[in-house]
Amino acid sequence: MKELLMSDDVERLIRTALREDIGTGDITTMSTVSPDAVISGHYIAKEDGIICGLDVVRRVFDALDADVRYEPICSDGDRVARGDEIAKVSGNAVAILSGERVGLNLLQHLSGIATYTRRLVDSVSDTKVRITETRKTTPGLRVLEKYAVRIGGGVSHRFGLSDGILIKDNHIVAAGGITAAVQSARLRAPHTLKIEVETETLDQVREAIAAGADIIMLDNMDCPTMVEAIGIIAGRAVTEASGNMGQRDLLEVAKTGVDVISVGALTHSVKALDISLKFTSLKN
Amino acid sequence: MKELLMSDDVERLIRTALREDIGTGDITTMSTVSPDAVISGHYIAKEDGIICGLDVVRRVFDALDADVRYEPICSDGDRVARGDEIAKVSGNAVAILSGERVGLNLLQHLSGIATYTRRLVDSVSDTKVRITETRKTTPGLRVLEKYAVRIGGGVSHRFGLSDGILIKDNHIVAAGGITAAVQSARLRAPHTLKIEVETETLDQVREAIAAGADIIMLDNMDCPTMVEAIGIIAGRAVTEASGNMGQRDLLEVAKTGVDVISVGALTHSVKALDISLKFTSLKN
Amino acid sequence: MKELLMSDDVERLIRTALREDIGTGDITTMSTVSPDAVISGHYIAKEDGIICGLDVVRRVFDALDADVRYEPICSDGDRVARGDEIAKVSGNAVAILSGERVGLNLLQHLSGIATYTRRLVDSVSDTKVRITETRKTTPGLRVLEKYAVRIGGGVSHRFGLSDGILIKDNHIVAAGGITAAVQSARLRAPHTLKIEVETETLDQVREAIAAGADIIMLDNMDCPTMVEAIGIIAGRAVTEASGNMGQRDLLEVAKTGVDVISVGALTHSVKALDISLKFTSLKN
Amino acid sequence: MKELLMSDDVERLIRTALREDIGTGDITTMSTVSPDAVISGHYIAKEDGIICGLDVVRRVFDALDADVRYEPICSDGDRVARGDEIAKVSGNAVAILSGERVGLNLLQHLSGIATYTRRLVDSVSDTKVRITETRKTTPGLRVLEKYAVRIGGGVSHRFGLSDGILIKDNHIVAAGGITAAVQSARLRAPHTLKIEVETETLDQVREAIAAGADIIMLDNMDCPTMVEAIGIIAGRAVTEASGNMGQRDLLEVAKTGVDVISVGALTHSVKALDISLKFTSLKN
Amino acid sequence: MKELLMSDDVERLIRTALREDIGTGDITTMSTVSPDAVISGHYIAKEDGIICGLDVVRRVFDALDADVRYEPICSDGDRVARGDEIAKVSGNAVAILSGERVGLNLLQHLSGIATYTRRLVDSVSDTKVRITETRKTTPGLRVLEKYAVRIGGGVSHRFGLSDGILIKDNHIVAAGGITAAVQSARLRAPHTLKIEVETETLDQVREAIAAGADIIMLDNMDCPTMVEAIGIIAGRAVTEASGNMGQRDLLEVAKTGVDVISVGALTHSVKALDISLKFTSLKN
Amino acid sequence: MKELLMSDDVERLIRTALREDIGTGDITTMSTVSPDAVISGHYIAKEDGIICGLDVVRRVFDALDADVRYEPICSDGDRVARGDEIAKVSGNAVAILSGERVGLNLLQHLSGIATYTRRLVDSVSDTKVRITETRKTTPGLRVLEKYAVRIGGGVSHRFGLSDGILIKDNHIVAAGGITAAVQSARLRAPHTLKIEVETETLDQVREAIAAGADIIMLDNMDCPTMVEAIGIIAGRAVTEASGNMGQRDLLEVAKTGVDVISVGALTHSVKALDISLKFTSLKN
Repeated sequence: MKELLMSDDVERLIRTALREDIGTGDITTMSTVSPDAVISGHYIAKEDGIICGLDVVRRVFDALDADVRYEPICSDGDRVARGDEIAKVSGNAVAILSGERVGLNLLQHLSGIATYTRRLVDSVSDTKVRITETRKTTPGLRVLEKYAVRIGGGVSHRFGLSDGILIKDNHIVAAGGITAAVQSARLRAPHTLKIEVETETLDQVREAIAAGADIIMLDNMDCPTMVEAIGIIAGRAVTEASGNMGQRDLLEVAKTGVDVISVGALTHSVKALDISLKFTSLKN
Repeated sequence: MKELLMSDDVERLIRTALREDIGTGDITTMSTVSPDAVISGHYIAKEDGIICGLDVVRRVFDALDADVRYEPICSDGDRVARGDEIAKVSGNAVAILSGERVGLNLLQHLSGIATYTRRLVDSVSDTKVRITETRKTTPGLRVLEKYAVRIGGGVSHRFGLSDGILIKDNHIVAAGGITAAVQSARLRAPHTLKIEVETETLDQVREAIAAGADIIMLDNMDCPTMVEAIGIIAGRAVTEASGNMGQRDLLEVAKTGVDVISVGALTHSVKALDISLKFTSLKN
Repeated sequence: MKELLMSDDVERLIRTALREDIGTGDITTMSTVSPDAVISGHYIAKEDGIICGLDVVRRVFDALDADVRYEPICSDGDRVARGDEIAKVSGNAVAILSGERVGLNLLQHLSGIATYTRRLVDSVSDTKVRITETRKTTPGLRVLEKYAVRIGGGVSHRFGLSDGILIKDNHIVAAGGITAAVQSARLRAPHTLKIEVETETLDQVREAIAAGADIIMLDNMDCPTMVEAIGIIAGRAVTEASGNMGQRDLLEVAKTGVDVISVGALTHSVKALDISLKFTSLKN
Repeated sequence: MKELLMSDDVERLIRTALREDIGTGDITTMSTVSPDAVISGHYIAKEDGIICGLDVVRRVFDALDADVRYEPICSDGDRVARGDEIAKVSGNAVAILSGERVGLNLLQHLSGIATYTRRLVDSVSDTKVRITETRKTTPGLRVLEKYAVRIGGGVSHRFGLSDGILIKDNHIVAAGGITAAVQSARLRAPHTLKIEVETETLDQVREAIAAGADIIMLDNMDCPTMVEAIGIIAGRAVTEASGNMGQRDLLEVAKTGVDVISVGALTHSVKALDISLKFTSLKN
Repeated sequence: MKELLMSDDVERLIRTALREDIGTGDITTMSTVSPDAVISGHYIAKEDGIICGLDVVRRVFDALDADVRYEPICSDGDRVARGDEIAKVSGNAVAILSGERVGLNLLQHLSGIATYTRRLVDSVSDTKVRITETRKTTPGLRVLEKYAVRIGGGVSHRFGLSDGILIKDNHIVAAGGITAAVQSARLRAPHTLKIEVETETLDQVREAIAAGADIIMLDNMDCPTMVEAIGIIAGRAVTEASGNMGQRDLLEVAKTGVDVISVGALTHSVKALDISLKFTSLKN
Repeated sequence: MKELLMSDDVERLIRTALREDIGTGDITTMSTVSPDAVISGHYIAKEDGIICGLDVVRRVFDALDADVRYEPICSDGDRVARGDEIAKVSGNAVAILSGERVGLNLLQHLSGIATYTRRLVDSVSDTKVRITETRKTTPGLRVLEKYAVRIGGGVSHRFGLSDGILIKDNHIVAAGGITAAVQSARLRAPHTLKIEVETETLDQVREAIAAGADIIMLDNMDCPTMVEAIGIIAGRAVTEASGNMGQRDLLEVAKTGVDVISVGALTHSVKALDISLKFTSLKN
């Protein structure tokens, strides 16, 4: 998870989350537990799934007390079964009890995404299609959620509006047609970015490919239409299927020969993976 | 939604989310749409549900361009059906296209929570029980998610660790028993907070009530045990049912006579409500 | 002082204070002292009092130079006499001279509060009354000032507006009477918070107790009236005396049998405890 | 108070203070007062003094709700008597009740400083001496506290360590004597800053003046010694009396002919001026 | 300059710059000019060049006082001659004098970049080559400096490390060759980004083109070698010339037929355009 | 470079610069280099100059990965020749490659300033004049740029508007003449600051000296006029030559006997010193 160490945003999110939960202090713990008490426990999976976010939990404890010992037993991406031990933690009780919930909230959420992604990726593992997420992420958590998708076997789409060109209806209308829009983007955007065009009909596909689009999104098309579109494109552009893919049979979509399937539900409708932190000893 | 206007945290979340999505600029729009283009559109529900977060969307646009006109057609808490129009927006195209996704991401997430909460609240509407959320919220979004629960008909639990006392196993072990823990909290915590004790057995219920607990949490109990516990408590404390309530029959739980049911799934396993922004005109 | 380690706010205050004082650099020290000079000194009480804030001083130095050695000789809450040594410090001269004033300003202010609180608490030590502060704290220093009150033997009131319910005149007018206000709060506020009602007359006391208030504030009442009020309440609610208590004879107030006395002057009119940092050696 | 409008720090302090007090929301008001209720009231002096901070109160309300109407009746620096009306406020009840305490805390604190300063300045009004504060200010409030001193008739000392040179014992030891320290500062510090030297004996005064110090601080000297020192200096440097001046007879000090007296107590031991906000109407 | 309005970073830079320059207040102005004084003046070019940053100046004044009237007379990108009037400003003297320098510093710097870029772009205007900047920008000013390059007629390269793939020596070594590096990037990076490979020899060019690179950087090649490289590439990839281009004859480079020339000196060695703000009236 | 360790602003600048460049992650490195790869390299001067900013580079790496080993081979202020090795770095490849450019951008910019300053200082080394910079610095970099000037042998002017008094035309007009302006400043500004007056004619010089100015700026004067002015001043004030000094013969100016020459070009028109980081090994 080295890559996340680079990101200031994760640090900020963790601090925001801790401030949000702890507020002016964990009153229950401060009024019942000695400030020097020591506690230890372990994280247990309460259902099957893919673990993701182990290092985030470490950073939560680090933000509170550098002396808390936290040792993951598995790695991000590992498959766990109900009852499996995931990690151990020990150290100052006030710090651990204060950070417990923030760590779990992130671990369960990210593991939920990784688990869901893995299930979808596995369902199309006999094809060469790539599963990717969309920009329908939880505000403030995008860097983590995209990481969880990768851990689950997906690949990342553009991060946001500044690192990819995706020409949609409005851009086409504004520019005066697909050809004009692609030309305008080619002229004014960095030469390092590919140009993707969203299409809903085969005519649009033809226009886009003629205009020199690098990627063609096939939006809300049924599978036979997709097959036709991919035939028209004939390898001249990368193809991406999109539109309520969370409710489609992805294998059927994959078999059209599309290169990429983007699934909004991967991040906008996540079921947390059930994980708990069981404490095994406490010394005042 | 006046209450949220008070909260700096919402402002910060919106700015974080915009920076996250927009990065160094919406390259597609900047390279295909005139900086002075004007666009208008409306928000449409694509499935039935409860709307929540209308004012958050306004604040997203306000953060980008104070001249964007945004007019909700309904109010937070309104029930909408698939196809209903929810709000209108018009103004500078660059601003609206840049803010579109962040606004939708929040609106869909909060409406998803409100919709789920409303369903649970309606399922127990013949009882006097209150439905409340837990601290299992999305990091950084707690203030909004708790608001969505209230909009859905729920009531709020403590916000976090500093505005409520909830004595759990570890606090009890650390303090040397339920009685000692309650006394310690009574002595050292603000006199303005009630003292809640988590119990898993009837013996613990008896100890807690004898120790003078103000609220007794009945954790992971089956319904007959809850009935017994509530009989023991006999009105001397508020009662709260907890533990995987998202997977229980809440009406059955409510009929035990418990005062409050807290449901983690309300915020940790949310399905976004499907809402889209359809643009109706664009002038360069 | 473990509890303060949890609070991001203290860290931010210290950094704000350092930036405020140091600005773009300690020009005098930078232009007269070698960057590698080493200095040592000790903190001396210049008047009798209660020490509070020793760990805050450590954090000031930590923020400037992790290698400064700082060793408190006493603990927060200890009583010191004029001339007593309080702590030792040694290390890089530029760091110590740059942080000296910020550390002292906080140490003197917090010790002033602890000293004043201890004096009031001692004056009522033969009774069971609790002394508490109010929300009349110095902006930005509340978490520290409330800590100093506890160190001086006081107990904490609610932290702010979000972790306690205190119904005053305006709330009563708005809700349409004490009974309605209490009911409204009971219905809409978290079940984890007690409901306190401010009263100025015995009639209001009677209404509040009938409405089921958990705490009754006796505001600006003379002692005989308080005695009467406490008789009416008869143990059914916690009682709190308030209103210019800094200028009242607290023992007389305590003898009315009231449970809590809240004193605004504890934090709004503080006399700093005189403490100085004497340097004993400096090596270039 | 235009000058304060320039300062970002005041804005940040106000936001910090509001977040500190309001936390996640004013629960009492939100649960008893309609979000659209309108309230009006006025600020009343409850003791005699000098008002300071009227514009800070405006900025507190502005930060919460731009539509709150706030009208000062007097100006910063005005002398008020017990019972005088100071300002009026009206507007949304939730906003006003949420911001009331933060505004008052600042207004009372700054008015306390202005009142104390004015008393000291008046006591020496027959002399030409200037009264100034020190760096013994409340962390985070320096810009406001120094403003309050000026409003009370004082003049400002250097703001902090970067905008003035004050050579003390340690700098002298480090540099190898007063002469060397002054020379070193002259060589390395900006030519725009005067060089002040702290002296405790007449010998030090002589050295400092010979070394070309621009300002000589007479620290902890009795009045006859100060007279002698000032005679030695003979107009060749500005003179500043310092050291527990809050407990000295300032007129006696002023009569020595010293140019400036710096008083730490002006900001480190402040008694808040008693001011209250009385509400006169509330409409739901 | 609408596009910059989107960027939070510009706002933050302006506030940082104002805090940096103003510190705790413009002491000269505060001590010599009435807080209500009104001033007016105009910006004059003192040498020929391209203006850039007019809206940034507006935002500087907006940050200090929303009532300052600032009216540009020309637009970003306009060519001005020595003596030309650029903009007018009038309003509160304290605000204008406090913000004058920060505004000018940015305006002169950005105009310097635009002027330099325009000169280079004009020198190759008979060719189809695009001039672009590099990542050698001033820390904190990248978004503005890249804007200035576009205003000067250049086009933007990738913004930073996250929105473009540029495979250099080390990546090639780490991946085990150009082919492996391109494949690895193709597999793991978003499909929306083109893959650029840095080459120094014709062999590397051949490998890169065979590996399917989308862009080939010709680094530090002399013109004949570039011509050869472009012949090898034969339109299968975009070509970019790089390496001390600030000291090369760009027309000669352009004539090799390369698509893009990237010039670090555009942003790392900028000569400010001389512009001054002349005040024409001041009323106390 | 201890002095810079004190400054929070440098830390913030570095983090801003890293976020600016790295964005959401170095995609090239993450997709081609193993997260555990280790790299080493050294910094080489590619032209002659004065090195400045070595510790800033360390802080860049520290902000990314505390385990990166970075060892400067020379010190700030050292003269290097083309080809000289400046520093070594080794450690995690992802961290080093991600921070490389930000560190170099700062090192090259600061070394450029130090080199230019040293050249000017050397040109007047036979005189006693001091070379200083102005407020024409790059927004956000002032603390570093002024440090670079000192490293190049210059001395610092006031940092900004709050730590020096510089009375210009407008202040003079506003106050009603030089005498009135100086008196007003004397009365209202801290007694720790010298008062500088900008003059353009000998008459103004006479007025300023009569008014008791501590420093007299000779703005845009030719050398004979400066000589005359300095004769008039006759040691009663410090003298400072200013106005396009970057284009004047500084030795000629110095020979007029002026005390200080302030040169805007030192910081507003900087040519980066060419330095590169050559990697020598990389292990996956």
